[in-house]
Amino acid sequence: MNSELVIYNTLNRKKEKFEPINPPFVGMYVCGPTVYGDAHLGHARPAITFDVLFRYLQFLDYKVRYVRNITDVGHLENDADEGEDKIAKKARLDKVEPMEIVQKYVNAFHKNMEQLNTLPPSIEPHASAHIIEQSDMVKQIIKNGFAYEVNGSVYFDVEKYAKTNNYGKLSGRVLEDLQSNTRALDGQSEKKNSFDFALWKKASPEHIMRWDSEWSEGFPGWHLECSVMSTKYLGEQFDIHGGGLDLQFPHHECEIAQSKAATGIDAVKYWMHNNLITIDGQKMSKSLGNFIKLDELFVGDHKALERAYSPQITKFFILQAHYRNPLDFSNAALQASEKGLDRMFKAYDTLQNLKSSVTSTFNVNELKEKCFAALNDDLNTPGLISHLFDGVKFINSVKDGKATISETDLDELKKLYNDVLFDILGLKLEEKSSAENSILPKVVDLLLNLRLEAKKNKDFATSDKIRNELTEMGVVVKDTKDGFEWSVE
Amino acid sequence: MNSELVIYNTLNRKKEKFEPINPPFVGMYVCGPTVYGDAHLGHARPAITFDVLFRYLQFLDYKVRYVRNITDVGHLENDADEGEDKIAKKARLDKVEPMEIVQKYVNAFHKNMEQLNTLPPSIEPHASAHIIEQSDMVKQIIKNGFAYEVNGSVYFDVEKYAKTNNYGKLSGRVLEDLQSNTRALDGQSEKKNSFDFALWKKASPEHIMRWDSEWSEGFPGWHLECSVMSTKYLGEQFDIHGGGLDLQFPHHECEIAQSKAATGIDAVKYWMHNNLITIDGQKMSKSLGNFIKLDELFVGDHKALERAYSPQITKFFILQAHYRNPLDFSNAALQASEKGLDRMFKAYDTLQNLKSSVTSTFNVNELKEKCFAALNDDLNTPGLISHLFDGVKFINSVKDGKATISETDLDELKKLYNDVLFDILGLKLEEKSSAENSILPKVVDLLLNLRLEAKKNKDFATSDKIRNELTEMGVVVKDTKDGFEWSVE
Repeated sequence: MNSELVIYNTLNRKKEKFEPINPPFVGMYVCGPTVYGDAHLGHARPAITFDVLFRYLQFLDYKVRYVRNITDVGHLENDADEGEDKIAKKARLDKVEPMEIVQKYVNAFHKNMEQLNTLPPSIEPHASAHIIEQSDMVKQIIKNGFAYEVNGSVYFDVEKYAKTNNYGKLSGRVLEDLQSNTRALDGQSEKKNSFDFALWKKASPEHIMRWDSEWSEGFPGWHLECSVMSTKYLGEQFDIHGGGLDLQFPHHECEIAQSKAATGIDAVKYWMHNNLITIDGQKMSKSLGNFIKLDELFVGDHKALERAYSPQITKFFILQAHYRNPLDFSNAALQASEKGLDRMFKAYDTLQNLKSSVTSTFNVNELKEKCFAALNDDLNTPGLISHLFDGVKFINSVKDGKATISETDLDELKKLYNDVLFDILGLKLEEKSSAENSILPKVVDLLLNLRLEAKKNKDFATSDKIRNELTEMGVVVKDTKDGFEWSVE
Repeated sequence: MNSELVIYNTLNRKKEKFEPINPPFVGMYVCGPTVYGDAHLGHARPAITFDVLFRYLQFLDYKVRYVRNITDVGHLENDADEGEDKIAKKARLDKVEPMEIVQKYVNAFHKNMEQLNTLPPSIEPHASAHIIEQSDMVKQIIKNGFAYEVNGSVYFDVEKYAKTNNYGKLSGRVLEDLQSNTRALDGQSEKKNSFDFALWKKASPEHIMRWDSEWSEGFPGWHLECSVMSTKYLGEQFDIHGGGLDLQFPHHECEIAQSKAATGIDAVKYWMHNNLITIDGQKMSKSLGNFIKLDELFVGDHKALERAYSPQITKFFILQAHYRNPLDFSNAALQASEKGLDRMFKAYDTLQNLKSSVTSTFNVNELKEKCFAALNDDLNTPGLISHLFDGVKFINSVKDGKATISETDLDELKKLYNDVLFDILGLKLEEKSSAENSILPKVVDLLLNLRLEAKKNKDFATSDKIRNELTEMGVVVKDTKDGFEWSVE
């Protein structure tokens, strides 16, 4: 097992050697989508980032259990515990049952994830499927003195927790600042402090998704599900918790507090956060209307798009930035990624057909070491890709007869590009476009018309050659009184 | 709305006019898979049967909510409430968490369903996600006097229920016969009668999937989930409940009893059952080892298979039998379906290019009426397909100049084949095989070699023609010192 992997731990704000709690097992939890709308560019980045980590850990022979949740209840419009449930609202607007909304957008999300060629997680638990477990954790937190009930709702007592624990240790927020910065919102008067957060919310009469509990008919708070489902499937302590930077506060800070308040121990060893994607320098936001859905991106159907960008181009674009850096979307950047990916895949094809010589004029082993050093350095995928492009130059030189490669090195180089491009980065060669498919009939017709002409000119050598070679390819030609018919065997 | 649809109602053993409870809404529940293994041929039949019903009801402008469950807990190896949970057992053997088994086989099932081009249901609820609702129904049944607790487990009191209700009305079973026919099994001594069934089972110490309840730490009985999830998402009364004939007893009989015992009313208006698939005349069974997985069928990897049969061939084969008739799998039958489907799709292609005349020599309207009459007659898909083949003969006659079709009829016929083949039966034209994809480069190379020869012979007319026509198709040709290079634009 390769033990050189170093991961940036948001908790300690530094890179740390990756040492799992129970090797060879690795438990990894990543926050998944709230399924009330189509996935957009912002969903692609954590999916791709943690897919690379999942793939790389498995490449290193770790046995990884990767849990990514589906939020299908409890995520309110306003993170401060107010507003309608996002899914219930969409269900109300569409006049359907909330679970129909959930099903529709889970299916759509899965389709996008498959297009991006990310692996499905080992377990994909739904929040609504773990109401009992969430109730149980609320009871435990109340029992341990870190939560209180008011009017059928239960809130986490942040002030009490902060007396014996470091609330804010992940995000760097300071309690006093939160106090003064939090506006008093309607309906929050039942909280002791505005920074307290809901563990269980009593449902208002019109609220559709509701379950009985000892406090009220209601539903769990949004933060609770992740504390519950991560520890249910990965144990009270586990290795990696990932998610987008936007979830650091309040979501992940609250998760830390909940788990600690319930069990007395810290649940997560390494916290990892991917940075966000901006569009032409601006934050993606509903008011700016600059959210680009993945379905729009893949077909080019959005005012910000000059044309379509395929899932693999999108993926390569995201991998060309380090996951902890901001990434700005622009047509120019995507088009550059497209050219780069094309160059990479062409070189990959070339590599398969290179001829070996007695000696190498390039140090393949050094290239390989550089590639894995980049991966081990907190998943430095842009560094990795730049090393691969150095290899591309060499591959093209060998093809042009300006460099040579030994047989051993050639095998090694083929293995390196296979491992890294496909197994670890999870890229894939795109399917032939339908445009390309539609060319075949035209080309065959052209060829068979040439054959007709050859026959007319008594050039039977040519006409037989065309027919025989087509037959060999599996194209069956039938002469008819009007000319010809053909089909593929 | 077309109101001619007639459905065979297993409950009354006759065909009945389909009249939904709250038109235009239709609620339909179908028993889905227990996800502890790959889907086999037996799973394809209910999926396809009720997909056609779902599609046809929507074609008739009904607003359909289609619920198909995933059984991920409570299905024991032995239907008489004994033995290990099927999923927990697989998890134990594979040394993973039960929910990893669930995720793996749900993903695999979805892939197969997509290959068969069946539509995803509106809601796909998991049994484990509805433990609270199942507890609630158990409480209600106990309260109504139709269940009793013994040692932390709760059983349905069939004898008591049968005093005021008709237990056996779906399956035709008679209680006295059940009594004498049921062997006393270990551990059943706590039941009053051997035909009683579990609503809640106390978990043995080694049982992994367990939830707290007022009776014990345990898990719900297998039959309960369907009563609970159908009424949760479709209301206490709903229109259609479907499933395989093998589920009629005990599963569906128990569902009827549970729902009636809980609410006092019958939940389901139309019960529909598809018949089973045999393999060369024999029942599929584990001991005979003649289960054919869909993945095996699609690639031809099973000793019973002479070769691969694509998802669309499999689907056409299943549609060529009426869903209530037994269907015997054999290589000969599948190959006949393959030829039939090929003939159908070729005629469909031909139809798109037919030339219209002033009059028709065929009654297109009558064909259309026959097609829909077959569909309305309890989904008589073999009848429908045979009418479509009558149309195929006519289409081919028009092509050969032996029959004529008017412009209006041509439009009508195109619409009919589109509606029926694709929208209602859910067939789809198969993608070009990869074999076919790999032909293009060879054909283009052959063509360009002919061009080289033409140039060598100073036949520039031919060489220019080849180049120009290829350019027009989007194939860019570049002359090099060694010959040529080409790429698709």
